[in-house]
Amino acid sequence: MKGYKVAVMGATGLVGQEVIKILVQRKFPVESISLLASDRSAGKKAFFNHDEVEVKETTPESFEGMDIVFSAVETGISKRFAPIAVQAGALVIDKSNAFRTDPAVPLVVPEVNGQDIRWHKGIIASPNCSTIQMVVALNPLHKANPIKRIVVDTYQSVSGTGSAAIEELTAQAKQVLNGQATAPHVYHHQIAFNVLPEIDVFMDNGYSKEEWKMVEETRKIMHADELAISATCVRVPVFISHSEAVNIEFSEAMTPDEVRRILSQSPGIKVLDDPMISLYPQAWAAAGTDEVFVGRIRQDASHPRGIVMWVVADNLRKGAALNAVQIAEEAIKRDWLKPTRNPETVGAGLKPARPGGQE
Amino acid sequence: MKGYKVAVMGATGLVGQEVIKILVQRKFPVESISLLASDRSAGKKAFFNHDEVEVKETTPESFEGMDIVFSAVETGISKRFAPIAVQAGALVIDKSNAFRTDPAVPLVVPEVNGQDIRWHKGIIASPNCSTIQMVVALNPLHKANPIKRIVVDTYQSVSGTGSAAIEELTAQAKQVLNGQATAPHVYHHQIAFNVLPEIDVFMDNGYSKEEWKMVEETRKIMHADELAISATCVRVPVFISHSEAVNIEFSEAMTPDEVRRILSQSPGIKVLDDPMISLYPQAWAAAGTDEVFVGRIRQDASHPRGIVMWVVADNLRKGAALNAVQIAEEAIKRDWLKPTRNPETVGAGLKPARPGGQE
Repeated sequence: MKGYKVAVMGATGLVGQEVIKILVQRKFPVESISLLASDRSAGKKAFFNHDEVEVKETTPESFEGMDIVFSAVETGISKRFAPIAVQAGALVIDKSNAFRTDPAVPLVVPEVNGQDIRWHKGIIASPNCSTIQMVVALNPLHKANPIKRIVVDTYQSVSGTGSAAIEELTAQAKQVLNGQATAPHVYHHQIAFNVLPEIDVFMDNGYSKEEWKMVEETRKIMHADELAISATCVRVPVFISHSEAVNIEFSEAMTPDEVRRILSQSPGIKVLDDPMISLYPQAWAAAGTDEVFVGRIRQDASHPRGIVMWVVADNLRKGAALNAVQIAEEAIKRDWLKPTRNPETVGAGLKPARPGGQE
Repeated sequence: MKGYKVAVMGATGLVGQEVIKILVQRKFPVESISLLASDRSAGKKAFFNHDEVEVKETTPESFEGMDIVFSAVETGISKRFAPIAVQAGALVIDKSNAFRTDPAVPLVVPEVNGQDIRWHKGIIASPNCSTIQMVVALNPLHKANPIKRIVVDTYQSVSGTGSAAIEELTAQAKQVLNGQATAPHVYHHQIAFNVLPEIDVFMDNGYSKEEWKMVEETRKIMHADELAISATCVRVPVFISHSEAVNIEFSEAMTPDEVRRILSQSPGIKVLDDPMISLYPQAWAAAGTDEVFVGRIRQDASHPRGIVMWVVADNLRKGAALNAVQIAEEAIKRDWLKPTRNPETVGAGLKPARPGGQE
């Protein structure tokens, strides 16, 4: 089996560390690994499998000879280095917001639109964590019964913000329990024993960017430009895993049993749905796992064609690192690692067909 | 000013304690106070204002001569003692679920349907905490522009369950921070650093009773039998205050500015809505306050007649104790303390007119 020269940008961050773990766990065909980070982290030691690897500073020269670059850095850094890595011949799989809405860049959740990998030009974007888990759960239903409208409210863990937020929640929780005052640094207000309806910056229409990502990214991934979506994204004092309450309006009425049947046959999903014995997806239990968990599936009492459900996944794994690695696996499997050379095929890729066929 | 003989059932519980505090804070015209609890708590000392009062066991004789009984006990106890108190001539204001859906018992949020107090027969029910704060925020809008459908997802604090749940969250949070294992007692699963989409028991239709209370109670309080409502009720690791993400479909399109204007002129509401400076209602900040706080008001991107907002209130105060005391104040003010004697008036009360007139 061919091995690949792999680089991980942001290798010391929460998602970067998770990428490294997942590459090992899934026996990804790594010929060589290069761990890249900011100059602050350069020189640190990290482990790949059982080998100690020195973390190097990311420079324009870091990408020479690389086949695949996993970019787990913030938007600005990604915008700077991703084009350089592409120039050097690598496929960049980027988890930042830098390229997600770029019509020339595919935005991919392999279970949903793996075929969009085909038309990449060197960069493939991995969606926002809260979007990924939702589309994994919704797409199989959408293919059976087109979705008209989604109302989603999220319960998002602090690990989505990064390791400083985990430290802040830990420190503040201790302070509150000890009767001490807290001071917010990472968030604008206290997050311990509180909930904050603020994730990313706010836009003029009153939605936060995080909420708007759920609108735009869901439409792009599911090839559903007309899909009506509203989201309220809320940070909760949970370390890992995002939970989502999702109200879905379908084209036709659909029973909860039908929803359960479709979801339990769909890739990447585990249905946990027996409320009578308190069985439903939970953030705490989902941490460290790969599936998108769905439960609390019921007929929406407020709409004849509505279904309500509860969707939980590990935001660092399926919501970020795992999805990125799965994109790379799919690109390798389909032999789509290198950009499409034929401009016609690329053009076709820019206006992908509605899903339902091949995928 | 006339004083009243007041009894508080469940005087040692979280809500009972809050009732006592609020009676003092609001200078409720108390002639005598009787603090009642289970035999376990009998003999304990409590404070009313600066006076030490002995807690007595609740017995059928406890209610003789009482004018007003605040019942802050669980449903079963309330079902047993409320009729006895009524027989003894008292007005019972009950915060349990025992009588809320009884068509012969008014279910009252004074800002919304204070006029329903008129037709009581001795018992007035105070709604579920998550319902109260929602209807306070929605009713002024509903009167201006009838609401067709509500989708609400809640972020409910553990104090709604009682003091044992506060202890459980505290203990589990310490255990998690110390790397120890946790064992759930009050809830079915760990609540520290987790969220649980389970409040009260589940029904055959897949909704929990807590969710269904939001459906039935909202319709009854707002006199809106046709209102379509779906709720997902979720327990979050917060000590006090419930937060709610509410999507509202109106009869006609309505701007966020119009919503803000109406809400800022409505009783019991405080609009906190400037996301650009991270100003929005927060559970932590709402604890100990009396208002229902509303923010994140925006046009629903998924519906032309939709508005989305974020509603927060102290579930022990406006969600329970304060609302009960306000009901008593309103009954006194309108001279409706004693049940209506005229059977015709009572009959008329059973089918109350749609709101919009007097109230």
